[in-house]
Amino acid sequence: MVYINENFLKLKAGYLFPEIARRARTFAETHPNANIIRLGIGDVTLPLTPSVVSAFHKAVDEMGNIKTFHGYGPEQGYIFLREKISEYDYKSRGVDISPDEIFVSDGAKCDTGNIQELFSLDNRVAVTDPVYPVYVDTNVMSGRAGDVNEQGVYNKILYLPSLEVNGFKPLIPANEKADIIYLCSPNNPTGTVLNRADLKAWVEYATNSKAIILFDAAYEAFIRDEDLPHSIYEISGALDVAIEFRSFSKNAGFTGTRCAFTVVPKNLKAFKKDGSVADIYPLWYRRHCTKFNGVSYPVQRAAESVYSESGRKEVKGLIDYYMENARIIREGFSSIDIKTYGGVNAPYIWLKTPNGLSSWEFFDMLIEKCHVVGTPGSGFGPSGEGYFRISAFGNRDDIVEAMNRIRTGF
Amino acid sequence: MVYINENFLKLKAGYLFPEIARRARTFAETHPNANIIRLGIGDVTLPLTPSVVSAFHKAVDEMGNIKTFHGYGPEQGYIFLREKISEYDYKSRGVDISPDEIFVSDGAKCDTGNIQELFSLDNRVAVTDPVYPVYVDTNVMSGRAGDVNEQGVYNKILYLPSLEVNGFKPLIPANEKADIIYLCSPNNPTGTVLNRADLKAWVEYATNSKAIILFDAAYEAFIRDEDLPHSIYEISGALDVAIEFRSFSKNAGFTGTRCAFTVVPKNLKAFKKDGSVADIYPLWYRRHCTKFNGVSYPVQRAAESVYSESGRKEVKGLIDYYMENARIIREGFSSIDIKTYGGVNAPYIWLKTPNGLSSWEFFDMLIEKCHVVGTPGSGFGPSGEGYFRISAFGNRDDIVEAMNRIRTGF
Repeated sequence: MVYINENFLKLKAGYLFPEIARRARTFAETHPNANIIRLGIGDVTLPLTPSVVSAFHKAVDEMGNIKTFHGYGPEQGYIFLREKISEYDYKSRGVDISPDEIFVSDGAKCDTGNIQELFSLDNRVAVTDPVYPVYVDTNVMSGRAGDVNEQGVYNKILYLPSLEVNGFKPLIPANEKADIIYLCSPNNPTGTVLNRADLKAWVEYATNSKAIILFDAAYEAFIRDEDLPHSIYEISGALDVAIEFRSFSKNAGFTGTRCAFTVVPKNLKAFKKDGSVADIYPLWYRRHCTKFNGVSYPVQRAAESVYSESGRKEVKGLIDYYMENARIIREGFSSIDIKTYGGVNAPYIWLKTPNGLSSWEFFDMLIEKCHVVGTPGSGFGPSGEGYFRISAFGNRDDIVEAMNRIRTGF
Repeated sequence: MVYINENFLKLKAGYLFPEIARRARTFAETHPNANIIRLGIGDVTLPLTPSVVSAFHKAVDEMGNIKTFHGYGPEQGYIFLREKISEYDYKSRGVDISPDEIFVSDGAKCDTGNIQELFSLDNRVAVTDPVYPVYVDTNVMSGRAGDVNEQGVYNKILYLPSLEVNGFKPLIPANEKADIIYLCSPNNPTGTVLNRADLKAWVEYATNSKAIILFDAAYEAFIRDEDLPHSIYEISGALDVAIEFRSFSKNAGFTGTRCAFTVVPKNLKAFKKDGSVADIYPLWYRRHCTKFNGVSYPVQRAAESVYSESGRKEVKGLIDYYMENARIIREGFSSIDIKTYGGVNAPYIWLKTPNGLSSWEFFDMLIEKCHVVGTPGSGFGPSGEGYFRISAFGNRDDIVEAMNRIRTGF
C-alpha cells in the first residue's frame, strides 16, 4: 500500500503567485474592460539583449551541425561559463571562488529549494521574515517545518522578524539556536540590503553556533551603493559557513530562458550525528550529478555572453531602466503620503498599507480602485502582514500609468 | 549545530558514468596514441534536425523582441507543447491523457529522481534489476534504501531480478510487498521491452496491492515491433496506478538541449496513514510549481517542432540511423560468438561477458585490447554482474571501426 508524504498536506492552500493570478483572473472576468497592470510577480519585461541573442543563435547553430553538436554536458555546467562567473562575479571583487566551486543550474528557485536535501531533518531552520516563500515551503515538504497554525506560521521554523524598527533587517536570534539560516539580500520582498557589519555578525553567529547560512543573492545586480557587499564571501570567514545562490533571471532577463548558479565552497563543513566533521561540497556535487543533467548548451552560451564587454554594458542598461521604474514608484507613493522602503538597491518597493488595511485588503482595493496588481506582504511571512510589495520590473509606460491611477485613486 | 543528511554517505563510491569517465581518462593518459571509441554513456551523436533548429532560432528571436518576449512561463510547461504531446504521444494511440496531466521538465533524470519526494519514507521500493541507477540512488539519498553491503545491494530495496532465463524481464514479487515499483521499458540497460501481457500483469499487481508504478519510457521511440506498447497507459487500469516519464533526449537528440515530460493522471491515488485515499496529481503539481520554474521558452518551442510533419520525419531518420548501428553491433558480436540481447526495439545491446569475466574485467579488457569504452552491467544492479552494455548512439564510422577492432581483438 503506497503512502503519500503527508508533509505536503501541511502546505498552505496555494503558493502565493498562483493565488494572485487567480484573484486577478476573477477580477478580469467580472471587469472585462479593465486594463489591468500587473506589478505583482517579479518578472522582467525587457527582452534579451543583442549580445545574448547573438550568442544564443550561434550556439543553436552549433547544435544543428554534427561537428559542433553538444550532447550531455557536465552536470555542474560548462567550464567556459564557470570561469567567467569566477572571474567577474568573484575574483573581480577580491573573492577567491574557483570555477569548480560553482554549479550552474536552471534556476535559483530550484537550487534554494533543493539545497535542504543535503541536511538532516533534525536541523532547526531559521528564515528571514518576510521572505521568498520557497525556503519555507520546501522545508515543509521535507518535514522540517512542523505544524502550521491558521496564520500560516509553522511551529518548528524560527522566524527572524524584519521589522520597520530594525530597518527591515532580520535580528540575530539571542536565545534560540538555528542550524540552517536562509538570508536574502537584497531582500525579496522588502528591498533591504544587508551591509558588511550585518553580514559580519551573521557569519560570526554561524561560525560560533556551527550553523550554515544559505545566502540568496539573486538580486545583487541591483545594488548601487558601492559600500554594500554583493556576495557574502566578501566577509571574512564566510567561505566556511555559507552557500550562495545567484541567477541570470533578474540581471540579464533570463526568467524565461532559465540559468542560475550556486556556489558551494570546498571549505564548507557540517557535522555528522557522532560529532565528526563532514564536507558539504561532495554532497551537493553528488546530488547535482544524480538528479540533474546540466543546463541546455545554448542557454549556457547565452549566459556566458552576459560577461562580454557588450553584455555587461547591456545588463547595466537593463538595471538602470528598472531602477528608474523603482524611483518613479517610490516618488509616486511618497506624493500621496504612503511610506515606502527598498527600491534603492533592489527592484522591489515595500510599502506600509494605509489605514491599517491587511495586505490582502490592500490587494483587493488596489485592483478595484486602480486596476493594478501587486503582491500582499503577508504572502512572504507573518511579519509581512500590513505591507505590500510593488515590483519595478514592469515596462515604463505601465509603471507611469499605474502611478497616475494610484495618485488619483487614493 | 548543522547536521548533514547521512543517507548520502550510503551511496556507492561514484555514480557509474563518472567512474567510467575516470577509467577512460586514466587509460587515455597512459596511452596517448590510442584512438578511444566511446560506446559507454547513452549520449546521442547526431545533431538537432533542421525543423528543431529553425523553431529554436525563431523562439530566440522572439526572446530578443520586447513585443514577443517571454518571461516566466507556466511551471508545468506551455500549453502549445502539452497539447502536441497529448495528441501525438497519447490520443493517437487511443490513450486519453489531457494536456494538463502532462508536466514538461528539463529531463527525465530529474523527474525520475524527484518523484519519490511525493511518497512516504516508509514505502517499500522495488526496482527492475539491472536498471538505470538513478532510481535507487535517489531513494538512498532520501532514506528508503537502507544499508548497503559490499556488493552495493541495499537491504530495504526489493530487487526484481531480470535474468536471461526470463528474457530479462523483471519477475512480479510472489511473497514480498512492493509499494513503489520502478519499471523501465525499453529497458536501460538490457534493451528488453515489456509486452502487453507483461504490463497487464504489473498493472494488476499494482491495483491489487495498492501500489504505484513509476514507468520510465524514455526509449519508447526505438520500439519497432508494432505489437509492443509505447505507453503503460495502453493497458486498461494503468491510469489509476502509474506515472509515466518520457524525454526528448533520445528520440530528437535533446541530451544537450534538455526537455522531457512526466504524465501524472488525475485518477491516480495513493493513501494516507489513516487509510484514506489521497490524490497524487495535486502533490506533483505543487512540487513542480514550488521547486521548478519551467523549461526555457526556446527549448519548448524546439520540442514542439518535433511533432510537426517534418519534425516527425526527421526523428524517424535519427532512430533509423541508431537502429542500424544497433544491428551492426549485434551482428558483430554474434560473429565472434558473444551472445547479445536487446538492440532490436531499443538502442542498447546487452551482452554476456565471455569466459565468466566480471563486468569491470570485461570493461578493462575491452579498453585495453580494442580501445573501446562500454558500460559494465554491474553498474546497473546486482543482476547486471557478468553482463555489459553497448550503446548504439555512436556515429556510424565509430561503430563500424569499434566492431572491426572487437572482431580482430577477440
